Amino acid sequence: MRRTVDWADGAVVIIDQVALPSEYRTLTLRTVDELIDAIRRLAVRGAPALGAAGALGVALAAFNGSDVAVEAERLASARPTAVNLRWGVTRALTRLGEGADAVLAEALALLEEDERLNREASGLAAEVVLSACSRRPLRLLSHCNAGRLATVAWGSALGVVWHLHARGLVESVLVDETRPLLQGARLTAWELAEAGVPYRVQPDSAAALAMARGMVDCVLVGADRITANGDVANKVGTYSLAIAAAHHGVPFVVVAPSSTVDTTLATGAEIEIEERRADELTHFAGTRVAPEGAAVFNPAFDVTPAALITAVVTEHGVFKPA
Amino acid sequence: MRRTVDWADGAVVIIDQVALPSEYRTLTLRTVDELIDAIRRLAVRGAPALGAAGALGVALAAFNGSDVAVEAERLASARPTAVNLRWGVTRALTRLGEGADAVLAEALALLEEDERLNREASGLAAEVVLSACSRRPLRLLSHCNAGRLATVAWGSALGVVWHLHARGLVESVLVDETRPLLQGARLTAWELAEAGVPYRVQPDSAAALAMARGMVDCVLVGADRITANGDVANKVGTYSLAIAAAHHGVPFVVVAPSSTVDTTLATGAEIEIEERRADELTHFAGTRVAPEGAAVFNPAFDVTPAALITAVVTEHGVFKPA
Repeated sequence: MRRTVDWADGAVVIIDQVALPSEYRTLTLRTVDELIDAIRRLAVRGAPALGAAGALGVALAAFNGSDVAVEAERLASARPTAVNLRWGVTRALTRLGEGADAVLAEALALLEEDERLNREASGLAAEVVLSACSRRPLRLLSHCNAGRLATVAWGSALGVVWHLHARGLVESVLVDETRPLLQGARLTAWELAEAGVPYRVQPDSAAALAMARGMVDCVLVGADRITANGDVANKVGTYSLAIAAAHHGVPFVVVAPSSTVDTTLATGAEIEIEERRADELTHFAGTRVAPEGAAVFNPAFDVTPAALITAVVTEHGVFKPA
Repeated sequence: MRRTVDWADGAVVIIDQVALPSEYRTLTLRTVDELIDAIRRLAVRGAPALGAAGALGVALAAFNGSDVAVEAERLASARPTAVNLRWGVTRALTRLGEGADAVLAEALALLEEDERLNREASGLAAEVVLSACSRRPLRLLSHCNAGRLATVAWGSALGVVWHLHARGLVESVLVDETRPLLQGARLTAWELAEAGVPYRVQPDSAAALAMARGMVDCVLVGADRITANGDVANKVGTYSLAIAAAHHGVPFVVVAPSSTVDTTLATGAEIEIEERRADELTHFAGTRVAPEGAAVFNPAFDVTPAALITAVVTEHGVFKPA
């Protein structure tokens, strides 16, 4: 399927991101409950893809004759950090008075737009990267997954790779595996392999060494929420990477559609950071890897202050803090 | 068994660190080949413990009537980064002329010393930590395993925790899980649980966020090699952690016996960094987590420049670069 999340025959259809890379399969979700479960399990994830899923979820609720306001609120709060989820839900709700078909039309318009805006944002970001880095071809580094799987169809940070790769300007991509759920090793590596872009997977903690050895020309990441002052919430580890990039003078570029910008929050300090279950760290593929009863600190995101970021790029160009 | 590595009935006996934390068991190694295999699989690991294993391995070779010089060289080069392995081998070899019993006596003296010197080094480091941090009780953070399992019996960085905990001065320890082989989640967490010290396991990449939230008073790590200028090779991720600690003004203390100091190397740039197999990153507990054919960057260690380190502490006190 071309899109990560889409609508077919009265249901939400998603690429099952939990099954990748060993299996490529789709899931058909016919109720809001099924969709919320898929969002919580990260079968669909990535801020722009969550926006699309949220909008389609409102359409599901409208067609299913549920109490749409209640279902919409449950959807919007299924995960707290990415602003796009609530944004997508809210946007679809604006057409509720016109009936379920209108809600669906609005959701599908949002999906269409998401691909176009990410394509534009990453195209503009590619120019920012080319200005910031002199070496050709480029050695890029990315964290988590900000590719087509994180969006409807094109990708934000990886969208930059697609633009540059098409012009023969990418030597390779270092892929942070991205603990604990390995979105880098599982999803970003899969997308790069599909696209024929040379890549290597590394432990997240090796990124600083790679920079010290001069192996990285630019870091590219997506975003889950961007506040008015330009602070960026993104997958945990982004902040650490930004500190290391600044330490080594490596440009650090954030790419996201403008729907990720939340001007209602002044700074990153106001962003709610989701903490996830202990077993994401204490177990792996059914095997216990920490002692019985181990407590964890398992934040899904962190906040990178604007001062550590070379540029936040949306479809409108480089984001200027309020 | 009290010691991580010891001699019993003509064989080297080790705690099997690959089986922890799900199973506590010992392995009896009767040949140099078995010992080298255990070293390469990290069934015994940690710079000081490798020194002890190397010395005992020379005794094994001497008793087994092998060509001791050849076996000693194979042992010393089983892993390249930790200086202690070759140091232990070399020290045991000095008594070869006096026969196998003398070699064993030298190795056992080294084991005895290792416990004493780590106890002293970590005692001195505890005072350094207390001077550097005003908060009581302390919230510490450690990476990889620098506990009793990394040494013969006491520990280097975790040795500091034992000293401070005995005085009621430890609130908790944040444990970097330490990808890819999870020595933090598996071994450090196990040691802290055994000792009754409150701890939480976190993804390596969450350490910077923990520092930004003011959750960390001091970072404590061990070392695999310390060069004349005070640069420190240690488990990959240490460098990233040191950059983050410096960024947040969090003291960063390295603890190791003086056998980890290698004055033959001027700076960390001369240290050989071991790169390990791809499947440490592409597979987990038998499950593939990266696409078929994925390439990796899997350095086992990195180098932290002296400028980022608050103090390197050995049994002689704070290390003064040459």
